[in-house]
Formats: sequence, structure tokens, C-alpha cells
Amino acid sequence: MDEFEAVTEGVAARVVPDDAERERLARTAARVVADAEAAAADLPVEADVVQVGSTARGTWVSGDRDIDVFVRFPPDLPRRELERYGLEVGRAVLPDGHEEYAEHPYVKGTRGGFEVDLVPCYAVEDATAIQSAVDRTPFHTAYLAERLDDDSAEEVVLTKAFLKGVGVYGSDLRTRGFSGYLTELLVLECGGFRAFLEAVRRWHPPVELDPEGHAAREFDDPLVVVDPTDPERNVAAVLSAGNVARLVHHARAFLDEPRVEAFEPRDPDPLDADAMAAHLERRGTTPFAVRFPAPDLVDDQLYPQLEKSLSGVVGELDRRGFDVLRAATFADGTAVLFVECEVAERPRIARHEGPPVWVDRHATGFYGKYADGDAYGPFVDGERYVVERERGRATAREWLESDDLLDVSLGVAVAEALRDGYEVLEGEETTALAAEFGVELARYFDPRP
Amino acid sequence: MDEFEAVTEGVAARVVPDDAERERLARTAARVVADAEAAAADLPVEADVVQVGSTARGTWVSGDRDIDVFVRFPPDLPRRELERYGLEVGRAVLPDGHEEYAEHPYVKGTRGGFEVDLVPCYAVEDATAIQSAVDRTPFHTAYLAERLDDDSAEEVVLTKAFLKGVGVYGSDLRTRGFSGYLTELLVLECGGFRAFLEAVRRWHPPVELDPEGHAAREFDDPLVVVDPTDPERNVAAVLSAGNVARLVHHARAFLDEPRVEAFEPRDPDPLDADAMAAHLERRGTTPFAVRFPAPDLVDDQLYPQLEKSLSGVVGELDRRGFDVLRAATFADGTAVLFVECEVAERPRIARHEGPPVWVDRHATGFYGKYADGDAYGPFVDGERYVVERERGRATAREWLESDDLLDVSLGVAVAEALRDGYEVLEGEETTALAAEFGVELARYFDPRP
Repeated sequence: MDEFEAVTEGVAARVVPDDAERERLARTAARVVADAEAAAADLPVEADVVQVGSTARGTWVSGDRDIDVFVRFPPDLPRRELERYGLEVGRAVLPDGHEEYAEHPYVKGTRGGFEVDLVPCYAVEDATAIQSAVDRTPFHTAYLAERLDDDSAEEVVLTKAFLKGVGVYGSDLRTRGFSGYLTELLVLECGGFRAFLEAVRRWHPPVELDPEGHAAREFDDPLVVVDPTDPERNVAAVLSAGNVARLVHHARAFLDEPRVEAFEPRDPDPLDADAMAAHLERRGTTPFAVRFPAPDLVDDQLYPQLEKSLSGVVGELDRRGFDVLRAATFADGTAVLFVECEVAERPRIARHEGPPVWVDRHATGFYGKYADGDAYGPFVDGERYVVERERGRATAREWLESDDLLDVSLGVAVAEALRDGYEVLEGEETTALAAEFGVELARYFDPRP
Repeated sequence: MDEFEAVTEGVAARVVPDDAERERLARTAARVVADAEAAAADLPVEADVVQVGSTARGTWVSGDRDIDVFVRFPPDLPRRELERYGLEVGRAVLPDGHEEYAEHPYVKGTRGGFEVDLVPCYAVEDATAIQSAVDRTPFHTAYLAERLDDDSAEEVVLTKAFLKGVGVYGSDLRTRGFSGYLTELLVLECGGFRAFLEAVRRWHPPVELDPEGHAAREFDDPLVVVDPTDPERNVAAVLSAGNVARLVHHARAFLDEPRVEAFEPRDPDPLDADAMAAHLERRGTTPFAVRFPAPDLVDDQLYPQLEKSLSGVVGELDRRGFDVLRAATFADGTAVLFVECEVAERPRIARHEGPPVWVDRHATGFYGKYADGDAYGPFVDGERYVVERERGRATAREWLESDDLLDVSLGVAVAEALRDGYEVLEGEETTALAAEFGVELARYFDPRP
């Protein structure tokens, strides 16, 4: 047994569900399905019930198990009725549950110590005819159920545990990592966890896999895995280039030196204000934080908006010469755009280039505009008129505190929140963030792949 | 009479030599030529004597007149003998003169209140067969003498006076403006001063003129005037793009509003230290001066070396993020590289990008190099490894004072001078320059086209 096997065997013993867990889960799931079928039978429309997701396929990581049960309605049922009937079944099966909302409202509750989601969807012909994203899920489960056996399911579980450990598991729009379905397809395609890592180690994006050989369009993503149930869909569409690169790094590192720590998500101690101040002193940068109440949105909407806003602010700071070394966004009730500037102040004047002297109309217009003003110049540099004129805002803080901040490309809800008011922290003032975002700041000031 | 004529008539009365000046000059020149011919007749080789330059062609600006007399020797005469015979004739004609050195040594002196240059050259077949640059001059004079009359000579004088007034006259390597020969060709080609300005106003470089229609190569200059005596030579090769642009500006301005001031070279009062300090305060920049003893070179060698050195220093400051707003070089015994920085200090760390994570050998090398070091990271950004590592020099001053300054592209003699020692002034310290370079600084802080 080589080191790789020794390490993964130890990990498998912990993360692969044992027989007792499997049996308990199977019993509970069967009861939920039976109850849902009984409740569906009372409806005035036809509906069938299917169990989906990793617990239906035996690929969940031990202890991390939701029972997902879908109720499928005829495709011609109006959406409102689908939602009403779906909730009726959900409430009948999970009387203590509560409603949540994804594509449709659905009921979430517990049964026998397991989380249960009861979700309505349309029983479409095939996955290319879906009316909402959840309609696709039963096809995924059917596809994988046919191909997975106990051994490959165990390889999937190990792989998921690894992806979680190195921080790239989860297709939510904050993580932008690997979904369960994507992971299962990759493990099947490669033939196991080790073969998957060996393949990843050789990846040179863009990487394209097409298990069914039926791709029906071009994709422009770092990793493309064409959905076996839909030739127009890339299962890895949401995966970021950074997460692909991170996985390549960790695959290489683990193959070179298998370590059980790779399966343990990083969980740093929160950074305190003093430690943060020491970092700032050592770095010599000028950090700024724009702090405001986080818009009331689910994470899948909030984080893309924060990222977009951060990128708008960074872009404009860079254009204004307040060069940004690194930036990050944090949210937890409060939202923060954190930017670390290399330059916090520019001169009171800036060079402003006019047209080439011989572009007659423009040139005389430019010259006339500045000739009698306060600017230095116009003078001739190379073939152009140039002036050195007063800058709008000479410090990054002035700009961040001005209404001009709202002119950059921001997420809609972030723009609204900023219009209602925000606060700018500069330099050591930003260490106040440590109280709320100590863990995020610990990661920021000790960045790793 | 329109305003243009009114203004130029007034100027002409002042700058065009009157009959008395012409006669005195002609008489003196004839005597110099006769004396030179007599001295040449005593030599053991054949030699003839020609008067060249603007005073030979009647195109000098009043009061600004050198008599240039060339002694032409057979092309097969060894260079050393040409120099020896040339000096013999020179000393015979100008017993009180002294030797100077351009392509060859020659004698400079005075006669009847005029400066006289007595220069040896080779009597080559035509201007394409020259052995040294001065051999070309008699051909230029012959070409122009055939084509100039009193009227066009007067137009040339006006044009020269204008080019002097706006600061673009002189083909020395400090000015990089219009030579006398170039000016005369342009006035002949256009048909007078006003027509020249009208043409210039419509210039859109690159502009190419070829009076004899015989260009024998491509030129890559903003203004090309193919030498009528040499199809491979651009008479305007030394002219800078900036001076072309400046002339376009002034031609337009003068045609729109003829003003006698256009003919008066700008002669600002020297800036004093207090006024300079006020400018620096208003601009909010951080100026630096690198001050050292000027290398002992003629201006045509010194200024190109200073410009090259300035450009090397500016380029490296920019690369290091000490963004240079404007820069200039001054020399007068002391030499100065003056750079005005927008940023004088950067953080103690800088972002350093590694290879894409999947470029295996390079990537592992980069990761291994920094993984256990002091740098922040390596982490993954997009597809690359990145570290934030200590910078070499965090302030512009540190860099300017370090030996690294000598690693940039410098003029040879400047590099030598800097190796012997230099001084760096920063911020208000640079106002000490006003004592020596007040006029240059007055121009710098009141830049005009």
C-alpha cells in the first residue's frame, strides 16, 4: 500500500457513510417518498415522486446529508397551481417544516434526524425541455444512478471531501466551485479519485470533456463538461478560473505528498485589530473600507453584486492612479468593500493630453479652452498639446466619500444601499473591521492557493 | 495692406540687412577670399576658395552674420595634410584667430567687425561623394545661389527671424530645429514667408518635400525635405516632432493674428527660489534633482547625452511606480536631471506575478521559491500564482541615491560623471537650483508651445 492509499483509506473510513448511516437514511427516505406519494394521490392532477441528489445516489459525505424528494407535475400545469400543489404535498409530509424559495417555493423540514427538502417540478420529456432549472435534477440522478456502483460512489465521496478540504466545493455564486453533479461526472469519466487527481494535474485550461460526445455548441469556460442530459449545457459553467487553478495546485501537491490535512477545510483563528495593524505596518499600503448595511438578498444574489461593485471601485481607483494592490469584499449583516491602495494621494495637478497640434479644429478648441486659464500650459509635447490642470480629487478618500463613487459600475442593490449612506475607513481605522470579519481578514492577510 | 503685411513690413525693416551692412560685408568677404586665395597659391597643392553660408547668399538676419570661407583641396589629399594646409591658410588670413574643431580643425577670427570662419574641405565631384559633412556645404550654396534673388532672400530672412522668434531655429542637437539651408529650401519651395506659413498650417506629419523629385530612399521623420544635392539625405533629419508641432501652432496663431511679438524670442525673468517653492506647493508633486559636474563636451555631444540619461531615469522611475509628471535637463558647468514625480513612495511590498499554475515546471519552481519565505502568498489569482514580496526600494530617493541608478541607459560621459559622484535634491531642496538655472526653471514652470 503506497502513501496515497494509506492516507485516502484513513480519510475514507471517516467520510464514507457506513452501513448503519446508509440504512437509516434509506428507511427514512422510503417513508418520505411513500408519504409524498400518498399526499400526491389526493391531488386533482397526476404527479409522481422521485428521490434525487447525493443521498439518492449514495454519494453523500458522511454526516452531510439532505434527503431531496421531488414531486413531478404535468408540464402543462400552470405555474401557480404547481406551486400550490407542491406546497400542499410538502406540508402534508413535513407538518413541522417551513417554506423556502429557490426557483419555486418549497418545503424544508426534518425527518428522523435528516434534513428533508420537498420540491415541486415539471415532469418534462427530457432535460432539454425544462421549464425551470430544478426540472433537470431528476435526469441527472437517473443518468448517474445507472452508472454508479458502490466502488465509484466511494470514490465520489472521497473526491467531494477533497474538494471541500481545499475549498473549491460548491456551485453557489460565492464559492463558484464544483457542484456535486460535476464531481460525480468527473470521477466517472476519470475512473476514480486518484485518476481524477492525475488528470487534473495535467489540465491546461481550457479543458473540455464530453462524456456523451454530443456537444451542440461552443463554450468559453476554463473547464467544460458537457451535460450528458443536455448537449447545450456546460455543467462547469459557474466554476471560476481561480478555482480550476487552485485545484490544479492542490492535485499536484497531494500527489507529490499525500497529506490527510488536504481533506480538512482551512479554519483560521480570527485576526484581531492589533495583528491587522501589524500587517498594515509591515505592508506599508493604505487600506480603505467602504462599509454599509448589507442589502437583504440571498447569498447567490448578494455576492455577485458585491464582487461587481468591488471591481467597479477598484477599476476607477486604478484609473485615478490610486493603484490597488489587492481587494476583497466581506458581508455578514454589514457589507464591506475593502481595497488596499499603493497610492492614497496624487499631486494637485494632472497631465491632460490634447489632440495632435495639426488636427485643426480640435487643436484650436483645446488650445483656446486652456490658454487663458489656470492650468500649466498648453504646451507642446511630441506632437500634442498638453496641459497640467487641477485634478478632481487628489486623495482616494475624497473620491470614495464623494458622490462620484456612485458613478462606477455597481450591483443594483449595492448602489441603492450606498445611496442610503456609507462610511469610509482609512488606514488604521480599518482595523475596526477585525471585530466582525476576523476570519475573513485572517485569510486575506495569509493568502494561500 | 493687410495686417500681415503691416506686421511683416515693420519686422523686415529691422531684420533684413540694409545696403550699408551688405556693402560692408561684401567688401570684407572679398578681402578674406582674396587673402585666402593668395595663401592657397603658396601651397604645394592645388586649392580653390569659396564663400559659403547665409552671408554668401544674402540671407542672414541683420546683425547675425558670420563670413564662412572654405578652402577646397583635392579629394585624394590625405586628411592630415588637408588639416595642416587648411590651418596654414587660416592663420595667414586671420593672424589673430584661434583654432576650433568641428569635423576638422579650422581657424576662427574677426575681420572688420565680422566673425570669420576659415574651413578646409575636399573638392569632391558632387555632394553624394563627400568625405566629411562640410564638403557638402559648397554644393548647398551653389544650389541656392542659382535660385535666390533679392526678393526671395528677403523672404528667407523674415522666415528665419520668425523661426528664431518662436524658438525652433537652429539645427544643433540641443535645439533640434530648422537649419538655415532647410529654411531657404522651404521658402523657395513654398514661394515666400506667408506661403510657407500657409503650407505649415496645413502640415499633417509626416510631410515630404522633394524639390528635385529624386528621393532615393525612404525616410522615417516627421518632416522630410530631400536634399537637392543628395537624394539619400533628409535635410530635416535632425528636426524633432515637437518642433514641427510648435511651428504648426505658431504658424496658425500668426496667420490668425499677426503680432510682432512672434519675432521676439521669449526671454523670461529668472525664477527665484521663493517663486519656485510656490509652484511646487501649488502642483503638489515631489521634484528630484540629480546634480553633478557637467561632462566637458561640446553642446552637440552634451545635450543628446543628457537627454538620453534623463529618458533612462524617467523610464525606470515610471517602471518603479514613481510616476513622472514632467522632467527636464539643464546644464551650465553643473548638469541637472530634474524629474517631477507624482508618487515619491510606494508600499514596502509589491505584487509579483508568477506563471499560470498549470505550467508545471515553472509553477512548482515559483511556488517552491516563495512557499516558506517571508512573502505574502503564494496565492492563486485568476490562473496564476502571485506573491506580495518586499520591494527593492520603497522611495524614489532611495533609488536615485543607489548604485542602481547607474544601471539605466545613460549617456557614456554622464555615466562616468555620475560614477564620480552626484547629489540628489528632493522637494523644496530643489529650489536651490533657481540660483543657477532661474531662466530654465521660469520656462519649465510656465511652459508654452
